[in-house]
Amino acid sequence: MSTGTADRETISHDEAFARIRLLRSPNVGPVSFAQLMRRFGDAMSALEALPDLAARGGKPYRAAPTDRVEAEIAAVKKAGARYLFHDSPDYPALLSQLESAPPVLTVRGSLDVASRPCVAMVGARNCSAAAVKLAREFAQNLAESGFVVVSGLARGIDGAAHAGALAARQGGAGTVGVIASGIDIAYPPEHADLQERIANEGLLVAEQPPGTEPLARHFPSRNRIIAGLAAGTLVVEAAPKSGSLITARLAGESGREVMAIPGSPLDSRSQGCNQLIRDGAVLVQSPEDVIELLSGFDGAIRSSFRESAAHYIADDEPAAQDPADSAAC
Amino acid sequence: MSTGTADRETISHDEAFARIRLLRSPNVGPVSFAQLMRRFGDAMSALEALPDLAARGGKPYRAAPTDRVEAEIAAVKKAGARYLFHDSPDYPALLSQLESAPPVLTVRGSLDVASRPCVAMVGARNCSAAAVKLAREFAQNLAESGFVVVSGLARGIDGAAHAGALAARQGGAGTVGVIASGIDIAYPPEHADLQERIANEGLLVAEQPPGTEPLARHFPSRNRIIAGLAAGTLVVEAAPKSGSLITARLAGESGREVMAIPGSPLDSRSQGCNQLIRDGAVLVQSPEDVIELLSGFDGAIRSSFRESAAHYIADDEPAAQDPADSAAC
Repeated sequence: MSTGTADRETISHDEAFARIRLLRSPNVGPVSFAQLMRRFGDAMSALEALPDLAARGGKPYRAAPTDRVEAEIAAVKKAGARYLFHDSPDYPALLSQLESAPPVLTVRGSLDVASRPCVAMVGARNCSAAAVKLAREFAQNLAESGFVVVSGLARGIDGAAHAGALAARQGGAGTVGVIASGIDIAYPPEHADLQERIANEGLLVAEQPPGTEPLARHFPSRNRIIAGLAAGTLVVEAAPKSGSLITARLAGESGREVMAIPGSPLDSRSQGCNQLIRDGAVLVQSPEDVIELLSGFDGAIRSSFRESAAHYIADDEPAAQDPADSAAC
Repeated sequence: MSTGTADRETISHDEAFARIRLLRSPNVGPVSFAQLMRRFGDAMSALEALPDLAARGGKPYRAAPTDRVEAEIAAVKKAGARYLFHDSPDYPALLSQLESAPPVLTVRGSLDVASRPCVAMVGARNCSAAAVKLAREFAQNLAESGFVVVSGLARGIDGAAHAGALAARQGGAGTVGVIASGIDIAYPPEHADLQERIANEGLLVAEQPPGTEPLARHFPSRNRIIAGLAAGTLVVEAAPKSGSLITARLAGESGREVMAIPGSPLDSRSQGCNQLIRDGAVLVQSPEDVIELLSGFDGAIRSSFRESAAHYIADDEPAAQDPADSAAC
């Protein structure tokens, strides 16, 4: 088994295995994983204590089967990916600040990319042609200005943002694609080539274990990683109550800048961005506006975004029942 | 000579004549008029002191010729208009708060209209069809919700705002047209009917004496009256450095709300509004947003607008050389 060069240097093979096993155990999520690590010092000790914890707390803690963990590690290796642990020196600094930072990620590509200043660009899948053009232009310009463009590889704005960053002259700063599926699954299918290109020329990141299909409940989790990697999140075009607004809200909650490109109130596809601006997001009209805002970001909380009481519903994400059932852009 | 019913009740015929004469005297503007009134108590005394003031201060103060004032008063009467003095109980309360409040206005129509809550709507003359539609819909809705729509009778957004207010069901709250020319001059010519309709169904206001052609230098003065009458100014569509932004700036300086309707950064006609929002204007998407913001406005300074250092140039106003040389909408 290999858990990747970077992590072999910092933790043992057994501890790496134990961490993966602990995280895949039922009822262990990123937050409880962190609590167990703080309490027991390492994953091997936490795993040993799991049965007792279950007996005492009444919660059905039980460690994931070792053969399933072994199969997962083989699948990660087969996909050309590697593991990245929360305490690795390569783990992206801003993402590590999240309370819910993923304890374990699978990645393909160059982690150097994620160490540069990142800006997240998100938006509707069912977007206007003008918004695709804007997203592409902003992303290329930002990448040429030293900002890595982070997005979610969805149709529409996400795809245009990645494509724009990849089109940057002299390579640009690069792009990071964060996917809601396992690292070995291309979604949406028409972005399979784009996903492969990001893995080869940028960085591809997945939190779910290999083989995981992109279910609706994975998208908000994926969105927190997009927002968490970046100094700020730019929403290009979004309808009210769309998933992009969740990403923006998560960025604001993490003290990151929230930016939105406005549009006519006559176009419902602009109303989410306009509402974000009403809620305190910074209106941006040009890549220069983004660069001016994010330059000098030092990780300190400084977002001007004030979250409204409204609940955003991720109705532009794939439905849980059928992940392929989504609007084409 | 008649100076109008409302003012006959509060000041004498001779004082009314003296005020008009004082204001039309060379080098006497609204601010120096107010200073002279404070110093001498009334216009008759100020006029008597003018020659001495000229001798002492070196400034060429000299009273306007009485025959010119008599001719002006006759022209106001002939136009079906009347004078409105700053200390009249009918003088609009919010406008009177301006340091540069016009000491004397000429008006046609019902002063009751200006006593209701007012919202100013301004924007580009060379505007998009979508913006005309928005302006008309906002104005009608606002007028039906009890807000008087104040604008400048220009082509484009101004005309659409007046028309929308006039189309309000059951008459609506009404509309006020503030013109840069004398009360007896229709400008632009294609709005002559609209101007007459506003005089008959709403209120028409002019600061310049009758016979005055609309020169470029009159437009910023006119704009301060539009902004000054209203609890807030809504900019519907405006290019960067346009006259509408001057009105917005004047509203902000007077502590009134500044609102703007956003648009795509790809459309230069939206960039002035977008920049206003970046400078602190409230983004509004619907008439309800305006009503929510302005309801309960009590005249106290509460604008969230922060003026940027940028200088706005009124390049969408008619040039001084040729007032008719303006973009058609």
